[in-house]
Amino acid sequence: MTDYQKRAKNVLTKINELAAISDDPTCVNRTFGTTAFQQGSRLIQTWMQGIGLQTRVDAIGNVRGRFVSPIAGAKTFVIASHMDTVVNAGKFDGPMGVLMGLDLIENLIRSGETLPFTLELIAFSDEEGVRFHTTYLGSKVVAGSFDTSLLDRKDESGTSLGDLIQSMGGVLSQLVNDAVKSDDWLGYFEIHIEQGPVLYERNVPMALVTAIAGQKRVEITFTGMAGHAGTVPMDMRQDALCAAAEFILEVERFGFINTHNLVATVGKLNVVNAASNVIPGEVVCSLDVRSHDVAALEAAYQSIQTVCANICAERSISFHWNLVQETAPVACDPAMNELLAQSITESHYDVIRLVSGAGHDGVPISQVSPIAMLFVRCFKGISHNPLEDVDLSDMAATLRVADTFMNHIIELETSRNGATRRFETFGKLANR
Amino acid sequence: MTDYQKRAKNVLTKINELAAISDDPTCVNRTFGTTAFQQGSRLIQTWMQGIGLQTRVDAIGNVRGRFVSPIAGAKTFVIASHMDTVVNAGKFDGPMGVLMGLDLIENLIRSGETLPFTLELIAFSDEEGVRFHTTYLGSKVVAGSFDTSLLDRKDESGTSLGDLIQSMGGVLSQLVNDAVKSDDWLGYFEIHIEQGPVLYERNVPMALVTAIAGQKRVEITFTGMAGHAGTVPMDMRQDALCAAAEFILEVERFGFINTHNLVATVGKLNVVNAASNVIPGEVVCSLDVRSHDVAALEAAYQSIQTVCANICAERSISFHWNLVQETAPVACDPAMNELLAQSITESHYDVIRLVSGAGHDGVPISQVSPIAMLFVRCFKGISHNPLEDVDLSDMAATLRVADTFMNHIIELETSRNGATRRFETFGKLANR
Repeated sequence: MTDYQKRAKNVLTKINELAAISDDPTCVNRTFGTTAFQQGSRLIQTWMQGIGLQTRVDAIGNVRGRFVSPIAGAKTFVIASHMDTVVNAGKFDGPMGVLMGLDLIENLIRSGETLPFTLELIAFSDEEGVRFHTTYLGSKVVAGSFDTSLLDRKDESGTSLGDLIQSMGGVLSQLVNDAVKSDDWLGYFEIHIEQGPVLYERNVPMALVTAIAGQKRVEITFTGMAGHAGTVPMDMRQDALCAAAEFILEVERFGFINTHNLVATVGKLNVVNAASNVIPGEVVCSLDVRSHDVAALEAAYQSIQTVCANICAERSISFHWNLVQETAPVACDPAMNELLAQSITESHYDVIRLVSGAGHDGVPISQVSPIAMLFVRCFKGISHNPLEDVDLSDMAATLRVADTFMNHIIELETSRNGATRRFETFGKLANR
Repeated sequence: MTDYQKRAKNVLTKINELAAISDDPTCVNRTFGTTAFQQGSRLIQTWMQGIGLQTRVDAIGNVRGRFVSPIAGAKTFVIASHMDTVVNAGKFDGPMGVLMGLDLIENLIRSGETLPFTLELIAFSDEEGVRFHTTYLGSKVVAGSFDTSLLDRKDESGTSLGDLIQSMGGVLSQLVNDAVKSDDWLGYFEIHIEQGPVLYERNVPMALVTAIAGQKRVEITFTGMAGHAGTVPMDMRQDALCAAAEFILEVERFGFINTHNLVATVGKLNVVNAASNVIPGEVVCSLDVRSHDVAALEAAYQSIQTVCANICAERSISFHWNLVQETAPVACDPAMNELLAQSITESHYDVIRLVSGAGHDGVPISQVSPIAMLFVRCFKGISHNPLEDVDLSDMAATLRVADTFMNHIIELETSRNGATRRFETFGKLANR
């Protein structure tokens, strides 16, 4: 067994130990703030203390461990992922990134090197947003972009976010002080499972992430005329479901012809007052379009809306188009990605570049710091499911690449003689 | 105002009086067996008594009024429709046929004619089947095909059909005796609103019905692979909703190219575990195909199933095809329809022949008697809705045609010198 295999096995043992802590004994479930969540949080803090980090739990419940650089004015490099889970979750989504980070830092500390930057390991408290229907509560606090109006938001049981934070020992006035100061950021690095099937299909253990896709989410209502399925002849119908069906296929076709640029999905569809013997008079469906390219996303959005209008005009159906949510694409840092690509090559793996269609904590962090991510192959791309799985050998391969990556960063930052410029300047260096 | 207009106005007054009796003061609602239903039933019985009929309420709650022929061995001619309603109903669906029948018989009695057959007016107690999810409870008793195993069936409140019948004063052992004896049937005639838009679009007040369409109802489950709408590329998807959408459009296309033979509808569609950011893994939808032509219905059913299989094979989607219900088409009596056509012509209206896509009480009656129906134009084809409406002038026109029709039947039956052959022999006479 190689050293990396041993380290991967050690990480997997911790992943399993954490997965055994659940609010539901039949599955993995550590929603933000629950008893199991807090128990898991304490275990992670204990592990951080065990490798010599200065730890604390911040106001929103992030577990944070620092290995402080002795160099005056040293910046902060954050390695992070999240520790909360969806309901009936897999055990790798989130925790694997935290515990690989723990392993990476443990080995750096052991090596006895003097780091040119302070390393901070963070286990974000709420990335999934299950409890309050939010996004990135933990990382937004660290990025300094937490919206305090969310404190009044209530979960299903009627507990507000503010009350939950206080019940866990958090001080609300402290939230604003828990951000990494904007001048202190050197960079952000996260390891996460892919949650998609590309690496599995291409038989490659890991990939670097070029961007996190932007997203537009639309709710569309098609209104025709309900009628008796037996008495209205085909040529006198205004069937809202037929219009929606044509739309769904056009959305799919649009995704196919722009397959390198975007994905487009109709995930929800509801026939209002549906009955098997009633011609559908009203149908409500969702549209989810994602792209790493802001221009492509906007063009797709406009084109699909035009297609929808044409279908409806042709069928004498009216429609209501409601843009429910939109997020801009986020690019990962090209300079850090060059170091990642170099590290992958040096570790003798193929360099695969993926766009992340799913959102990650890097989205809010990207507003204040260069970010980079490594995706790890997961079994058949399955995630948010007990069947979620990662091969030990892929974890070992990823640790090797990440180790190499961290060493390159240390070299580069050291070679600047303790310079404290922001990480984006790597890009400028690389372009010389 | 012509005599027919006065008679139509009188019918409309009764329709309104009946519609005012409802379990819900904000809408028309006389579901089988409710307080309002029983109050409406008593009013109809009173009206029947008022014109001199021998009345009774049978075990299933049908209100029946007989005008008995003095001729020995005279057969029975039934004029009928139903008096129960759907929830939030229109006021014409059912009651109009009963009350026009009342008017027709009142005028025959007034004329002092000796009828060569006994006339029976029936207000069926349960055609809509809302309460017990059944079909044709009232007319099945009259046809002698009532299934007594239904007596154990319970409504939403847990009351069984048997208990309900007894609470209304019905004797269960009497059900089998309430059928019109199979040898006694001369014919069956029902007036009903069209419940579809054809007469409204063609601007004609009434039509004769050539057949009541047969129906096949299928539940289809499409199973693909659920996945993250952001992370699974378009070419790695098995989207169950896209397969269903393709199926829906093929069903519509199939209906269009066979537009004179059938109608085909997908009315219900459910995406299992739907979320806007999840590629649909399972979709369940309904299929409703109707035709007056048994061969066309069977051929369509087979073709659509083949199309479904092809779509699914192409997309690597599996499907489960479950035939939920099927009824055979029922033909109306050609000889009676010739008399109806003659009566329409003599009344100076265009003869329109329609297939009824909706089911009617004539379906079970057709097993024991020749049947005929007149459809009356309704506003925009709207039915099962408070907006259901019929023009007074259309009701007058229909009464005129129906009067003529009844007179032709009396003439023909009288000319047979009191012969008691079944009505089908009219067809043979006409073909000579």
